[in-house]
Amino acid sequence: MVFSISCEDIATKARVGKLRTAHGVVATPCFMPVATKASVKTLASEELLGLGVEAIISNALLLYLKPGVEVISAAGGLHKFMNFPRVIFTDSGGFQALRREFKPEFTKRGIAFRSPFDNSRHVFTPELCVAVQEALGSDIAMTLDDCPPYGEAKERYVESVARTTRWARACKAAHTCDDQLLFAIAQGGTFADLRRESAAQLAALEFDGYGIGGLSIGEPHDVMLEMLEVSISALPEEKPRYLMGLGSPIEVLEAIARGVDIFDSAFPTRNARHSAVYTHAGKYSITKAKHLRSFAPLEEGCTCYTCRNYTRAYVSHLMRAGETLGMRLVTLHNLHFMQALMREARKAIAAGEFAEFLKEFKQNFKRAKHG
Amino acid sequence: MVFSISCEDIATKARVGKLRTAHGVVATPCFMPVATKASVKTLASEELLGLGVEAIISNALLLYLKPGVEVISAAGGLHKFMNFPRVIFTDSGGFQALRREFKPEFTKRGIAFRSPFDNSRHVFTPELCVAVQEALGSDIAMTLDDCPPYGEAKERYVESVARTTRWARACKAAHTCDDQLLFAIAQGGTFADLRRESAAQLAALEFDGYGIGGLSIGEPHDVMLEMLEVSISALPEEKPRYLMGLGSPIEVLEAIARGVDIFDSAFPTRNARHSAVYTHAGKYSITKAKHLRSFAPLEEGCTCYTCRNYTRAYVSHLMRAGETLGMRLVTLHNLHFMQALMREARKAIAAGEFAEFLKEFKQNFKRAKHG
Repeated sequence: MVFSISCEDIATKARVGKLRTAHGVVATPCFMPVATKASVKTLASEELLGLGVEAIISNALLLYLKPGVEVISAAGGLHKFMNFPRVIFTDSGGFQALRREFKPEFTKRGIAFRSPFDNSRHVFTPELCVAVQEALGSDIAMTLDDCPPYGEAKERYVESVARTTRWARACKAAHTCDDQLLFAIAQGGTFADLRRESAAQLAALEFDGYGIGGLSIGEPHDVMLEMLEVSISALPEEKPRYLMGLGSPIEVLEAIARGVDIFDSAFPTRNARHSAVYTHAGKYSITKAKHLRSFAPLEEGCTCYTCRNYTRAYVSHLMRAGETLGMRLVTLHNLHFMQALMREARKAIAAGEFAEFLKEFKQNFKRAKHG
Repeated sequence: MVFSISCEDIATKARVGKLRTAHGVVATPCFMPVATKASVKTLASEELLGLGVEAIISNALLLYLKPGVEVISAAGGLHKFMNFPRVIFTDSGGFQALRREFKPEFTKRGIAFRSPFDNSRHVFTPELCVAVQEALGSDIAMTLDDCPPYGEAKERYVESVARTTRWARACKAAHTCDDQLLFAIAQGGTFADLRRESAAQLAALEFDGYGIGGLSIGEPHDVMLEMLEVSISALPEEKPRYLMGLGSPIEVLEAIARGVDIFDSAFPTRNARHSAVYTHAGKYSITKAKHLRSFAPLEEGCTCYTCRNYTRAYVSHLMRAGETLGMRLVTLHNLHFMQALMREARKAIAAGEFAEFLKEFKQNFKRAKHG
């Protein structure tokens, strides 16, 4: 069995589970650092393992463009290429291909676009998308989806749902690799009927798991949560649910309470490179003047590499001086924070106390003004 | 005894020694990575220790400007601030203060300059320079020197020698810290008489060791070697000699053959950040197309972290994709290379075979065209 649920919370829809893959088991809820270009920015794979990271996500389309699938295939696959022996998801790249800088156009069979690197023309079809991910050798492949930006007319989302289902079916038909799981991505914009329709259509096609896409791209927070609930209500209970591209610690916990199992986001790492440090008492900017004279760790009581070895003063100095070690040290801390948060969440769910845990975390995280 | 020489080569002036400091012993010949702003660019202190680095050099003037001496002093000194428990040299900053962007002017007692960070005005005197380095708590402090650029009129170097000696005397008089060594810096431009004079004047003042400054700043290579020989001939045999700001693997070995014990340079690390990989068969650029399809290590047979864990293809991809992990992996390799080179040099000297070692290294290093 690919996914098993070991316990469910009482007051919320949160659940603890295990996702089994060709490169080991992932305990869920799980937060994946983003390795878009086959590197979690600033970190070596050894550091990811040291953080206890069980899964990361890379991007099929971007690797297809650079360095090219044949390079990674010749290396023996993405795991060997980047020397990461644990679970690797690959996003299909549908989301990227539709961004403006790719000058996308829909063709009968896929998305035509221009490489932003050299302006070369490519057509990404469901079949190519699957072939690329099989060649990369990721543990979980995602189907090609049509993810429109937020705020378009409803017809655009109607079209997106139909195309996403058609492509998901084509991906499934093209998929041959036995030790790679295939997840579909539900769309539907901010329309409850379309969200329900998309999830139900994909559920009927029986994938190994389901991504929920097209959220946290500009819509109000309460709309995001509502759409998430609608999508989940139409997905099978027993399959893993992966909320794509989200997000902040509080958002992640709120989504766990609604039954999400897997997350990915560039937030904690991008925040780190912009000096934002995560703590249980909220986020703060390490470059603020007062931290330059603080010889405390980034977060009191934290056991991460950075907090065990360096002070706020030193990290603040590094960031102000433009030394890249600073970015790495905050990245290590923020990812440690997200890993610890997922462990705490799983524990709270197992204890049937997730609602209290969430409430308390939110209060603390929003409370403090670190400056 | 601060410095002891355990063996001397037969055919060259190369020697193997030990420099004893408050933070342990440094085996010489020794190459110091540069941590100008209290960070060897891209590396954590743990990685420096892993490389076997026994000594690094930071810059008193730049730390005085940013983050400020009071921050590092409050941290318990530079060792604690950057969490590096081994030997730290600090350069006085005379060299930096005289660069054009500091808008320097000589005053009666020192150098007046503007901070390139906030245009604030400062006067660096020998007394302040020593006080800063004592507050930083480095193991070896350098005297304030007057290092003119290459190619000025001879009078400028006459002036420089006189001022450098005057300041060295003032630094020695101001120096009170018992567990910090004080090295003077010999100048003299490219004039043999001035080189001899500067070294002799400083030798008479009896410092713990001697820097040789003002070389490798634009003069021809053979002139550099000649001036180095002249400087060394006027320095005491039994004191450590430190050739400042140099350099490439071959230059370092050539200087060892002339009796230099200690080196520092940003070359191997700056080269790394610009994709240049050091090997015994020469330097090559990892971003060249052919390396993207090579699954060999950066250097065959190398035991560094990068070569044990990653391929040329992956490092090449990282560099092309602008991922900072690439810079770190090449930095680790190049510093491992320099550490290994110093070990090999010490071994060759002890075996009385340094001339052959140097000849062979030069042939191999210049031979190959890696591309």
